[in-house]
Amino acid sequence: MRVSRYFLPVLKESPSDAQIVSHKLMLRAGLVRQTAAGIYAWLPIGYRVLQKIEQIVREEQDRAGAIEMLMPTIQAADLWRESGRYDAYGPEMLRIRDRHDREMLYGPTNEEMLTAIVRDELKSYRELPRTLYHIQWKFRDEVRPRFGVMRGREFLMKDAYSFDLDEAGARQSYYTQLLAYLRTFQRMGIQAVPMKAASGPIGGDLSHEFIVLAPTGESEVFYDAAFEEFDWQQSDLQYGDAEGLQKLFDQVSSTYSATDETHDESRWATIAKDRQRTGRGIEVGHIFYFGDKYSAAMGLKVSGQDGKPVTPMMGSYGVGVSRLVGAIIEASHDDAGIIWPESVAPWKVGVVTMRQDDDASVAAAEELYGNLQLAGVETAYDDRDERGGAKLATMDLIGLPWQVIVGPRGVAGGTVELKRRSSGERHELSVESALARLTE
Amino acid sequence: MRVSRYFLPVLKESPSDAQIVSHKLMLRAGLVRQTAAGIYAWLPIGYRVLQKIEQIVREEQDRAGAIEMLMPTIQAADLWRESGRYDAYGPEMLRIRDRHDREMLYGPTNEEMLTAIVRDELKSYRELPRTLYHIQWKFRDEVRPRFGVMRGREFLMKDAYSFDLDEAGARQSYYTQLLAYLRTFQRMGIQAVPMKAASGPIGGDLSHEFIVLAPTGESEVFYDAAFEEFDWQQSDLQYGDAEGLQKLFDQVSSTYSATDETHDESRWATIAKDRQRTGRGIEVGHIFYFGDKYSAAMGLKVSGQDGKPVTPMMGSYGVGVSRLVGAIIEASHDDAGIIWPESVAPWKVGVVTMRQDDDASVAAAEELYGNLQLAGVETAYDDRDERGGAKLATMDLIGLPWQVIVGPRGVAGGTVELKRRSSGERHELSVESALARLTE
Repeated sequence: MRVSRYFLPVLKESPSDAQIVSHKLMLRAGLVRQTAAGIYAWLPIGYRVLQKIEQIVREEQDRAGAIEMLMPTIQAADLWRESGRYDAYGPEMLRIRDRHDREMLYGPTNEEMLTAIVRDELKSYRELPRTLYHIQWKFRDEVRPRFGVMRGREFLMKDAYSFDLDEAGARQSYYTQLLAYLRTFQRMGIQAVPMKAASGPIGGDLSHEFIVLAPTGESEVFYDAAFEEFDWQQSDLQYGDAEGLQKLFDQVSSTYSATDETHDESRWATIAKDRQRTGRGIEVGHIFYFGDKYSAAMGLKVSGQDGKPVTPMMGSYGVGVSRLVGAIIEASHDDAGIIWPESVAPWKVGVVTMRQDDDASVAAAEELYGNLQLAGVETAYDDRDERGGAKLATMDLIGLPWQVIVGPRGVAGGTVELKRRSSGERHELSVESALARLTE
Repeated sequence: MRVSRYFLPVLKESPSDAQIVSHKLMLRAGLVRQTAAGIYAWLPIGYRVLQKIEQIVREEQDRAGAIEMLMPTIQAADLWRESGRYDAYGPEMLRIRDRHDREMLYGPTNEEMLTAIVRDELKSYRELPRTLYHIQWKFRDEVRPRFGVMRGREFLMKDAYSFDLDEAGARQSYYTQLLAYLRTFQRMGIQAVPMKAASGPIGGDLSHEFIVLAPTGESEVFYDAAFEEFDWQQSDLQYGDAEGLQKLFDQVSSTYSATDETHDESRWATIAKDRQRTGRGIEVGHIFYFGDKYSAAMGLKVSGQDGKPVTPMMGSYGVGVSRLVGAIIEASHDDAGIIWPESVAPWKVGVVTMRQDDDASVAAAEELYGNLQLAGVETAYDDRDERGGAKLATMDLIGLPWQVIVGPRGVAGGTVELKRRSSGERHELSVESALARLTE
């Protein structure tokens, strides 16, 4: 991408209406613009990050055997009357009447719709278990939307729903999603800790929130340092390994983690002081087991092995995809701007000419940019005729993991500067070495 | 994908409420289910096709230099008051009041929103031209939704918007999208013919519809056989080549094509009889130049080279992404089901065991499936314990380009049958040869 032909409106000043750092930085770095209260347009750079996060979520869901589909945003009110939630749901539900005066709503979640679809299509125990998911925009009409995309009204969520013949099967589906979540967040370069939720909708131990650690988080959290040491992504644990998944669940359950609501001082005291971690956190995912709550209310049944009808047991599994953009920024930034983990960065590398009027610099930068593109390295090339200092400040603000700074003095000696955004380290090296480093 | 673990509900009978073949086949082959009048859930196989179509549209937009972003589905009514369209737009606009009784709407299109965003961010002539696009769900509250996703209420559209300093620049942006459209539809394996639209919103020659030919199309069309011979995809024409793009436009403009509304018998008569093509067609795209209609109404200005304010000239460019799924089926099916062009097929290959209780067949099929996956060939493997004939009928119905049929007799002799869906050709050949053919 050439910045001179892109759409990257950055702001020098922090907008006064933004209260938290991620909201400020998302506005300043040109990721989003508000188009109505709590509703945002994703500008090109923001949408790139959103798509990367979405794709990681998708890949880990697929790897876990969940099947992708897409449900519509607008739902019929009658569907929600079947579960009894139409009246129970408060004013956060955006209710709509169409031209024929039929009651509709903008879906805040999809338990009812998917239960109805599955009810019409699945007939036999042989067709279970199944976990289906979609990544779709939802709407919750927050009374006071704030904090940018962290508490917006229109937001992107991944929601998965599992259908099993019995509770034992449903537990396996739950453990499978638990592992998928641990892998998903770790791939995004953030520390997310699973915490038993204060109370699942039907009690029991099968409800976890996933909390990203960030100094500006909304709630206080406590956890064992062990959570920083697990490598979920590289773990050999296979989906389908029932025993291994049970062990994983036991390990997660027995390792201390709690929000201030569930914090237990006496258990906390048993953890070695140097293993106690406290901080603040942002919820980015929530998984639930809810048994037959929807299947029973909506009459979902399949024929069991003995020919008798069985009511499937269900769970649901949400990830706040658009919220994660804000949460990652809360967890990874400095005074100069965003510091993207490489897996979700809009581009891996930014190439900057310090003087666009210096032919040798431009020639070197063009060649480097061309070679990076040939090598498949996602690169933003700031080829604008602007002050070098301003261009560097923009690169820091938008937070690409690597910067290559091309200036007249270096180019005369055949070198460029390679800067790592996260550490600030800068090295002067030959163009070839820089290219080799970035493509390795 | 293993069918035994997938969600692929097929119907033996045509649903009685579906009037056109694409709607029938989309229901029968398990692509969609209606969840409210004119609103559909995309089941896994349907969503795969939708994503493939979306990705082709995206790649060709990117190649043409358009920049992707994402605008929200819900818009503020006030935005539409600025252009005067809020009151002008009829009951097809889904109007909504939020919890604070503010007037909102579900966007049917995004001229106003993007003009407002650009107005706030672009300051100088140096930042133009720009073409921005998004692929987002829209809503039009059709009074009588019908024909499945062909005339649904919630639908996926790609809409691009170009901003130029003057009409000459805007023409170039228009030609660029024209070429991108020709390439886009050709990549999908369908014949789409550009036709001058009856009247652009501001007259002139810069408004084209793109019509996919299908016997069940909504309108009659007439065109020169030359449109069947152009290879837009492989053309050497580069974006940015102003002269080449002008030639392309002149070529398209001078080659006869018309809907029944614009048909000109005297021009038609000048075309050799064996070059005259008539048929029926479905609109899948529409591109417009509309000058300063929105920029003037909404006060979008940038400073020109001489420092004086300039009102940019705009165009908009739509593709009916979800509609294309239906249109491609209309254009490509037979009595047995859908015939997907390879570029949009949900999987390239279907592997079928005729007898899942025959160990040798299963072993051969498993190995083949494993090897196809290793080679990166998208494969659906029907490993269910069902009658072979029913499985083959399902494969024909869902329309994968290639089928590999694994039966006890063939396997005993080391062979499988390879069937090409489009022609029905079947060849018996060794497992190795089949694999080689499918991975070449």
